[in-house]
Amino acid sequence: MSYADFEARMAQVNDLLSVLNLLAWDARTQMPSGGVVTRGQQVATITALARDLVTGDAMQRAIEGARAEVSGDPIRQRALDQAARDIGTLSRVPAELISEAAELKTVAHSAWVDARAKNDFAAYAPVLERMFAIQHKIADAIGYADHPYDAMLALYEPDMTLAQLEPTFDTLKAALVPLIERALSVPAPRQDFLSRSYPIAAQKAFGLRIAEKFGYDMNRGRLDDTIHPFEISFTRNDVRITSRWRENWLPGGFFALWHEAGHAMYEQGAAPEITRTIFATDVVNLYAVAGASFGMHESQSRLWENRVGRSCEFWELHFGALRDTFPEQLADVTAEEFWRSVNAVRPDYIRVEADELTYDLHIILRSEIEAAVMTGEAKVSDLPGLWAERMKSYLGRDVPNDTLGVLQDVHWSHGYVGSFPTYTLGNIMGAQFFDAALKESAIATGLETGDYAPLRGWLTENIYRHGRASSPAETLQRVTGGPLDTAPYIARLTDKVDALTGVSR
Amino acid sequence: MSYADFEARMAQVNDLLSVLNLLAWDARTQMPSGGVVTRGQQVATITALARDLVTGDAMQRAIEGARAEVSGDPIRQRALDQAARDIGTLSRVPAELISEAAELKTVAHSAWVDARAKNDFAAYAPVLERMFAIQHKIADAIGYADHPYDAMLALYEPDMTLAQLEPTFDTLKAALVPLIERALSVPAPRQDFLSRSYPIAAQKAFGLRIAEKFGYDMNRGRLDDTIHPFEISFTRNDVRITSRWRENWLPGGFFALWHEAGHAMYEQGAAPEITRTIFATDVVNLYAVAGASFGMHESQSRLWENRVGRSCEFWELHFGALRDTFPEQLADVTAEEFWRSVNAVRPDYIRVEADELTYDLHIILRSEIEAAVMTGEAKVSDLPGLWAERMKSYLGRDVPNDTLGVLQDVHWSHGYVGSFPTYTLGNIMGAQFFDAALKESAIATGLETGDYAPLRGWLTENIYRHGRASSPAETLQRVTGGPLDTAPYIARLTDKVDALTGVSR
Repeated sequence: MSYADFEARMAQVNDLLSVLNLLAWDARTQMPSGGVVTRGQQVATITALARDLVTGDAMQRAIEGARAEVSGDPIRQRALDQAARDIGTLSRVPAELISEAAELKTVAHSAWVDARAKNDFAAYAPVLERMFAIQHKIADAIGYADHPYDAMLALYEPDMTLAQLEPTFDTLKAALVPLIERALSVPAPRQDFLSRSYPIAAQKAFGLRIAEKFGYDMNRGRLDDTIHPFEISFTRNDVRITSRWRENWLPGGFFALWHEAGHAMYEQGAAPEITRTIFATDVVNLYAVAGASFGMHESQSRLWENRVGRSCEFWELHFGALRDTFPEQLADVTAEEFWRSVNAVRPDYIRVEADELTYDLHIILRSEIEAAVMTGEAKVSDLPGLWAERMKSYLGRDVPNDTLGVLQDVHWSHGYVGSFPTYTLGNIMGAQFFDAALKESAIATGLETGDYAPLRGWLTENIYRHGRASSPAETLQRVTGGPLDTAPYIARLTDKVDALTGVSR
Repeated sequence: MSYADFEARMAQVNDLLSVLNLLAWDARTQMPSGGVVTRGQQVATITALARDLVTGDAMQRAIEGARAEVSGDPIRQRALDQAARDIGTLSRVPAELISEAAELKTVAHSAWVDARAKNDFAAYAPVLERMFAIQHKIADAIGYADHPYDAMLALYEPDMTLAQLEPTFDTLKAALVPLIERALSVPAPRQDFLSRSYPIAAQKAFGLRIAEKFGYDMNRGRLDDTIHPFEISFTRNDVRITSRWRENWLPGGFFALWHEAGHAMYEQGAAPEITRTIFATDVVNLYAVAGASFGMHESQSRLWENRVGRSCEFWELHFGALRDTFPEQLADVTAEEFWRSVNAVRPDYIRVEADELTYDLHIILRSEIEAAVMTGEAKVSDLPGLWAERMKSYLGRDVPNDTLGVLQDVHWSHGYVGSFPTYTLGNIMGAQFFDAALKESAIATGLETGDYAPLRGWLTENIYRHGRASSPAETLQRVTGGPLDTAPYIARLTDKVDALTGVSR
């Protein structure tokens, strides 16, 4: 057994997981409706083979056999350690528990659809209780030091714990609530022109032109339409994105596109030499991905979407081109008005329609209450009450019903407990990285002149090319010189509110 | 070990092979150019896993273990026998030989591309000699009674031998040469209107409407565009086709579409209960397909394309709709003129552009000379001479150069030796099946009134639903009461030439 043998086996695993990603992409973008059942069987077969390859004796022997060979080679040692750790996590969850969760997921999903349609949380609660119970068993199987929620969090964000999450989110929450109040203290900006008629082909062409300017490489990518936009990759050489377009809502399509392009540039920017290695393979989740964590991935999508795409400089540069594309529809609009319109703050019930300032409070609310259920501080039956109470406290809104409240998200019905925090962790880390990047003057100048190559080059060098070879905490330390820190993000949002509320900018 | 275990393993194999088909479909229709190398690695990994599952000890034990259980159950016995036979064939070819062929294929393909571009057969000959030598080794590994070509033929057409093929093709050839002369004895029909401007979207809509009338189910299918049209399936529930459209050549797109729809209806018509079984799996070629052989498949594509789509009744029924679609372009054309235009006979060098009457002579020429190389009667260096000589003798044309002659097809460079005959076998069997179907008066009436459900129902009942559970020879016997027979096909072509040359129809 040699390191080459370990690498060959891991490449095979990565191939299977890339194929799983293709099966998922195809099912969501191309597959005829009749294919759904047999596609599920194909997915199950490939998943089982991947799991067998990962957790089998041959892989174990390959890792152990390669140990001696790599001493003194930190990269290869790291690869073996990471493989051993992640295979350990995956192996600790009994296959029966995974099957049980998969079966419950089907039941829970349709129970959720029904409950949401009928505004009937009580009918859904028993299934949701079973889902949380299974997640608790999975947490117990994986193991944790302090809280069962820690085991869940680490599935999506390696090394993250509730002990670190709680103060981070408390700090952010304390800053956001008054910021939102301040943003609402001035008259709402014009948004009337956003719902005029904008032919979709032209929206898409504009959005894609910008995404390519950012650095999304269409020779290794493609763009399709779906109801729920997403990014997915089959190695760095084939990284696909989708967006959703509405003729009567201009900004939806291209902000979604730039968000997904941010994810895609991360995958496309992985170093060629980590292709098909452990550093481009999420063994724990049996998922082919080069990004280091869900939060790290989100840091890049949000950075391009919000830090770049919603900035004042961006629209000063590009509003002209947008108005050339839609001269009649935007005849009475200025660049500043357009920038204000896509940064309008409006506290509301629905997460997926939330603006940048209120979005994190939706996340914090969910993170707090799912953690409470996992640690036993709250019961599933408490969720509607907790939801309504915090929605009032954080966003000042009375939830009119559970359909517009606790029933709005699909995540829990699929067993995703612990994934919500990664959206806000992404926002926080994204601002830290952006601040670090701006220390290079070429990057700041590029953002003012529309040359995004310096920023993308810096992100590639410091983040993208490393793939999963560097954990989120290690990356933060290496790139920003410190740990996770809300200050840069809060400063960015404060600056934005200052600009939005200032008499003149 | 039980029959259920055998079925579960075969289902897993079928899933992997369906996934391979999806990887191929995606590569040909959706994949960005940058994905080609890593896609090749993914294909290699899945292929190797499928081969391991098929030829491994566990499958062997499952088959042997299930023997006792199925005695007295002819279908299950058949399944085990077929699996054992096909796994035997696959296992006899050493893995090194398959790798050698795969490596040579890459080299041979680019040598062929170069040689064709430069009209330089001599430069290609050494690689082609090596390819034929490897195919000879594969034939020796598989084994054969009379001729090494028999082993090749059987890969594509189970039980077919050169001893059966030669007299069949001789009979057909003897009939075709004078038929073509007769067809050419009258003035060529009008074709001027075929190259007017026909917007592609409207062509596609017309073609697809007819394909759905034939019975192609778009809930379990989809249509894309490619340079080389093809059909591919991932179980009966997801059967996709492609076509190629040219604005200035009306019939190309929809005849290609109906040809592929014929293939697709075969796959969609397989009985639900054979899904993911040996009866929907070509173990020898590691290919997920329900059709019983390459020739059987071609019998269905040709039947719908030529027997139905190029018939006089068809255009009497549907020319009105086509003229409604293109009122200006077809203002000066009658249904009869249109029918004549898509049946024009024109002997030429290029197989893929050949009309129905001359097509089989292209195939017979190729079959004869590839068999001669395999049996040692001819050398690769003889091929250009043999080609030119037979092109003159069969089609009366002098080949101007090798690019338009022996270098025109990709097949040999990919190691496909023995596949050409299946095109003509398909034509022959298709006519036999069509004659048998027409004995039911509802089918004949349906063809005159545009109701294709009776024909499709008959084909489903007699052919499609059986998948690979019935060999080509068994199917012919069951459906037509006899063996392979050229008479029905020759009679059909004779009737067509009579109609095309008659003073009035």
